[in-house]
Amino acid sequence: MNILVTVNSNYILPLMVMLKSLFMSNPGEYFDIYLLYTNVTEGEIRDLEQYIKGSGHSFYGIEIQDEFSGAPVIFHYTKEMYYRLLAYEFLPGTLDRILYLDPDILVLNPIKALYDMDMEHYLFAAAYHNIPAVKEVNRLRLTPYDIEEYYNSGVLLMNLELQRQHMSEKVIFDFIDKNELKLIMPDQDILNALYAKEIKPLDEKLYNYDARYFYYYKVSSNGLCDMDFVIRNTVFLHFCGKRKPWTRQYNGKFDALYKHYQKTALG
Amino acid sequence: MNILVTVNSNYILPLMVMLKSLFMSNPGEYFDIYLLYTNVTEGEIRDLEQYIKGSGHSFYGIEIQDEFSGAPVIFHYTKEMYYRLLAYEFLPGTLDRILYLDPDILVLNPIKALYDMDMEHYLFAAAYHNIPAVKEVNRLRLTPYDIEEYYNSGVLLMNLELQRQHMSEKVIFDFIDKNELKLIMPDQDILNALYAKEIKPLDEKLYNYDARYFYYYKVSSNGLCDMDFVIRNTVFLHFCGKRKPWTRQYNGKFDALYKHYQKTALG
Repeated sequence: MNILVTVNSNYILPLMVMLKSLFMSNPGEYFDIYLLYTNVTEGEIRDLEQYIKGSGHSFYGIEIQDEFSGAPVIFHYTKEMYYRLLAYEFLPGTLDRILYLDPDILVLNPIKALYDMDMEHYLFAAAYHNIPAVKEVNRLRLTPYDIEEYYNSGVLLMNLELQRQHMSEKVIFDFIDKNELKLIMPDQDILNALYAKEIKPLDEKLYNYDARYFYYYKVSSNGLCDMDFVIRNTVFLHFCGKRKPWTRQYNGKFDALYKHYQKTALG
Repeated sequence: MNILVTVNSNYILPLMVMLKSLFMSNPGEYFDIYLLYTNVTEGEIRDLEQYIKGSGHSFYGIEIQDEFSGAPVIFHYTKEMYYRLLAYEFLPGTLDRILYLDPDILVLNPIKALYDMDMEHYLFAAAYHNIPAVKEVNRLRLTPYDIEEYYNSGVLLMNLELQRQHMSEKVIFDFIDKNELKLIMPDQDILNALYAKEIKPLDEKLYNYDARYFYYYKVSSNGLCDMDFVIRNTVFLHFCGKRKPWTRQYNGKFDALYKHYQKTALG
């Protein structure tokens, strides 16, 4: 299976933890890990490559340099924001499908059912968060674009074959030029504004569980989505928001579990 | 290393989880698991034996029948309560040392430093809980016996060689005859009343961390004993008290971690 990740120097260690959890929760599976990067040292890339190959999987590093010279530079955001939108341009033309994963994720269960799903005519598959607190924040983003749900781009299954036919750098760059000031989280906002109707919706409880909202999921499911359910069924546990579980001051329902994986991955 | 466990039918699955965590947190170590039991079906013993041997370790089941015919029967307590106190009588005379572990424990880190410690002249090594809420409950138990600390018997390193010389069934049975009504948790009370001064104290944060008191440990250590510390240093995480982490309604700081081990152990 093809996995896409991107990274900057601050996220190398969390990325390793995410990958370790992917490998551990998918015994017997073989992964091709594609990394799109800028501004990461050779040493860091080598560490990552050794780590992935040492776990028995393949690593392909793709350095992005100046390819976006025609792209608008949005205030403090870097070029990395385009990676998810334009990955189809940089990946080998032989790949028909790839699964993008954020580094602030733990993979708890096998991904095969998701990876093999029928994508029909959709360009992406992703989940939106139906949590009131999250929806409230996203309403501002949704209003200008005439879309109903705001998809989270942390887990993104990409239909590369169709993307190559239907997506275009120019459409994306033009959109940014016109909407710069309105974009809060640029790549996710663009994904939603331009492609929301081309995204096949996934169940967030399985494929993009927001780790901040254990009690919301549990109560809103009448107790069905409890800890047993999450540990046995949730595939991607996503540590959304500013507070990250690899910091000492983090304090959440999945704190112990994250740090257990962290120790397993990094020693 | 020699490990002692006891079990009744209700605790077979938690025992498997505890053993799985022991094996996972001690890679490269080889364990001889001794089980003392009564009233467990042959099928259950066979499952346990297969589970342990399948993990590459050895299993020795020792059924206890009528050996305690001279022992006082205390209201609703069963014979199992004597196992920890009289284990030295039932185990092979060639063993000089064994580590007893309760089934409501997760082993998070290697046990070798503990197992190999110098026991000097002590019959046992164990930890007492210095947590105000626990101490308050134990004060009642301590008063009649002129002892300062009340040791928790969930993790008990046994100096079998010395025990064979210095402990006696008769002393234990006589004590019970005289104190029956005062005993709240019989085996732990007897251990403390008779042998508190023969117990080498262990650091509870490492060797008998009470999973109910994360915030107490953290605050009382000025933040030193935080989640990072526990995951990297604590050897035995003990789910003391009535609420057990294998129940669906359990809700504690280590809920996700326990259920992760449970899934890993039992599928």
